[in-house]
Amino acid sequence: MAIQIERIQKDIEIINKFNATPEKGITRLTFSEEYQGATAYVVDELKQIGAKISYCQAGNIKASLPGTDQNGPAVMMGSHLDTVVHGGKFDGVVGVVTALEAARIIAEEKIAHRLPIDVVVFAEEEGSRFRWGLLGSSIWTGKLDLMRLSNIKDSGGVTYAEAMAKAGFEISEKSLLEPRKLRAMLEVHIEQGAVLEKGGYRIGLVEAIASIKHLDITITGIANHAGTTPMEERSDALQAAARIITAVEEIAQEIGANTVATVGRITCEPGQANVIPGLVKFSLDVRNPNKDILDSSVAAIKKTVKDICDGRDLEFKLTPLAESKPVSLSSQIIDLMEEKARERNVKALRMVSGAGHDSALFADLTETGMIFVPSEKGRSHCPEEFTRLEDIGLACKILLDTIVELAA
Amino acid sequence: MAIQIERIQKDIEIINKFNATPEKGITRLTFSEEYQGATAYVVDELKQIGAKISYCQAGNIKASLPGTDQNGPAVMMGSHLDTVVHGGKFDGVVGVVTALEAARIIAEEKIAHRLPIDVVVFAEEEGSRFRWGLLGSSIWTGKLDLMRLSNIKDSGGVTYAEAMAKAGFEISEKSLLEPRKLRAMLEVHIEQGAVLEKGGYRIGLVEAIASIKHLDITITGIANHAGTTPMEERSDALQAAARIITAVEEIAQEIGANTVATVGRITCEPGQANVIPGLVKFSLDVRNPNKDILDSSVAAIKKTVKDICDGRDLEFKLTPLAESKPVSLSSQIIDLMEEKARERNVKALRMVSGAGHDSALFADLTETGMIFVPSEKGRSHCPEEFTRLEDIGLACKILLDTIVELAA
Repeated sequence: MAIQIERIQKDIEIINKFNATPEKGITRLTFSEEYQGATAYVVDELKQIGAKISYCQAGNIKASLPGTDQNGPAVMMGSHLDTVVHGGKFDGVVGVVTALEAARIIAEEKIAHRLPIDVVVFAEEEGSRFRWGLLGSSIWTGKLDLMRLSNIKDSGGVTYAEAMAKAGFEISEKSLLEPRKLRAMLEVHIEQGAVLEKGGYRIGLVEAIASIKHLDITITGIANHAGTTPMEERSDALQAAARIITAVEEIAQEIGANTVATVGRITCEPGQANVIPGLVKFSLDVRNPNKDILDSSVAAIKKTVKDICDGRDLEFKLTPLAESKPVSLSSQIIDLMEEKARERNVKALRMVSGAGHDSALFADLTETGMIFVPSEKGRSHCPEEFTRLEDIGLACKILLDTIVELAA
Repeated sequence: MAIQIERIQKDIEIINKFNATPEKGITRLTFSEEYQGATAYVVDELKQIGAKISYCQAGNIKASLPGTDQNGPAVMMGSHLDTVVHGGKFDGVVGVVTALEAARIIAEEKIAHRLPIDVVVFAEEEGSRFRWGLLGSSIWTGKLDLMRLSNIKDSGGVTYAEAMAKAGFEISEKSLLEPRKLRAMLEVHIEQGAVLEKGGYRIGLVEAIASIKHLDITITGIANHAGTTPMEERSDALQAAARIITAVEEIAQEIGANTVATVGRITCEPGQANVIPGLVKFSLDVRNPNKDILDSSVAAIKKTVKDICDGRDLEFKLTPLAESKPVSLSSQIIDLMEEKARERNVKALRMVSGAGHDSALFADLTETGMIFVPSEKGRSHCPEEFTRLEDIGLACKILLDTIVELAA
């Protein structure tokens, strides 16, 4: 089974030509024209090897290579093709192209397999368009109610359901994912951190995925004239927000224990230089592999929001958004992948993922495993994101070996 | 000379029907469809009393009632019709409708006047669309080079010159304003503060207008993954911005002496919950009636920007935008207006304006005066902005008396 690294390179290049911001990084929002182009390319490649394509709930795409046991549970592999705004070429893409290449090798070399082998492309992993990370997989796995798709909107007010329909996503497989029809779920992904690079590892095996809490925080003050309202008579929502944002960093540093907390989005109304901000909205993203530590971090931040707003006589609202629990991945799969790495004289590092991944939603449904490849300088979600092709190829080989054994 | 207060009320109502945000306050950006509608209404009203309309440089509109001395310098009065986003019904509008009503009375009652009487509508006073306050009057009075109109852009990248052309602003009077053709400039405006209301005054006479400095501040960090980048390895542009915004308030309070400093606009890139901000831009608006105090406030803020960014190893850029010097208005005009108020048994308050006004640009060119009317609770630049119709009517009477005397 010899994978073709040039073919993977070509896949990555073609997928990244579908890009809404060629002047700065890669932007491919779920169901956008660029997204449709990229998924169509992958679907075409999979059709060429005889895979049966299903457009699944919430816009996830599944391509199935039937096994000799028609009713056996499937071994699934894949990742996502949506990106953050001004993101990189590898996040998500690496998991799709390695799965695609593994499937091509299995088909071309006519490798016998009893169980079906599925390639999957998850929709809206990043939450860049609908502000809800892991949305496609959350719906498909039944973790989030299907009805939510009619309420979750993008910044232009378009609902997920409308965007999906407009993009021509014809749902041929109406049912949700059936866990009993799954044997395993495997995902290759870039690390998005610098642990592998610093340790000199080419392969990481994910033991656990950190839990994440996303909140939206809204502060309501009073918009007023910037020239005629004395400092002591202001109800400036941005001044309160600035103090909360400062505290978010301080709290994360104080609690430590791998806590990360980020305010990545802020808007201010009316948003004019000569008007005191009357309304500020910002996002909060807090993560920790330990749920108790995560909960206490979020509680400390919430208390700070209340204290600062109460002290300034401002109203505030905390809106919980996506939340993912910490999950442990399958030790059997990790052992198997470690063995496959060892057979190729590669020492893999067992590690924790600070980033959330679609695979996290499969961990309680089936045997789930993730392979990480190094990110140069740990950079991700930015145009500078880079992973060496050799490392991607190596991950593809380990994925292929593992899949073939699981489906045998 | 009996002004008709119902007519002023109707003018205010009609002008404010031209509104891009009927769900929240008034939004009428320069050269927008709504702006064109409102100016067209005022122009029609002025045409009906036989005024000669000129579309002047930078989109300012002048309507002239000829005097018996054809070549005499004009007595000018007016204000602006553009608003901030989600602003109020009175800012600017009050100065236009009082001038319009005064002109109607002069025409209808055939009040003899030697000098021409001009009603003026200034473009882009607020700087809401092109981020440059007092732009129309700055260009017209030659304080800002005409060529700048091809560089100053709105948030969509449209230049002022393009927007003006697209709005059909046919410049029939190509020349800039000629100061020697001016006898005086008078403007009625809402106070936008609470000084008059608190003191129980119905009329304020502006002795001086505070100076303003507008800057844009850009901080460049490194966009990175919110889950996998440890707190100590981040170059988070928003964390630096939050500390600077906090310091802006602290510096203004510390310096005191009527210093006001505001961050009213902030944007963050890529602006996603799960990405550390790599680029933050925000506005700074600092004001003081004393130029030395203003300069030292801005210097202190600039030093803070440098200290915070240097301490966090972030790049920053300070871009100076509009700047207006403190100006004293004409004591002769103030005396005259005070006399006219006294004749109506009204005690006027001499005061300083914290807000900038188009009139500030005329103070070194001609005798310039401003009449303030009270703002309820001092609120302005917001939907709650309110000024009593009786006070507007009173200001109109004083304006009319003063204009007639100056033009006699």
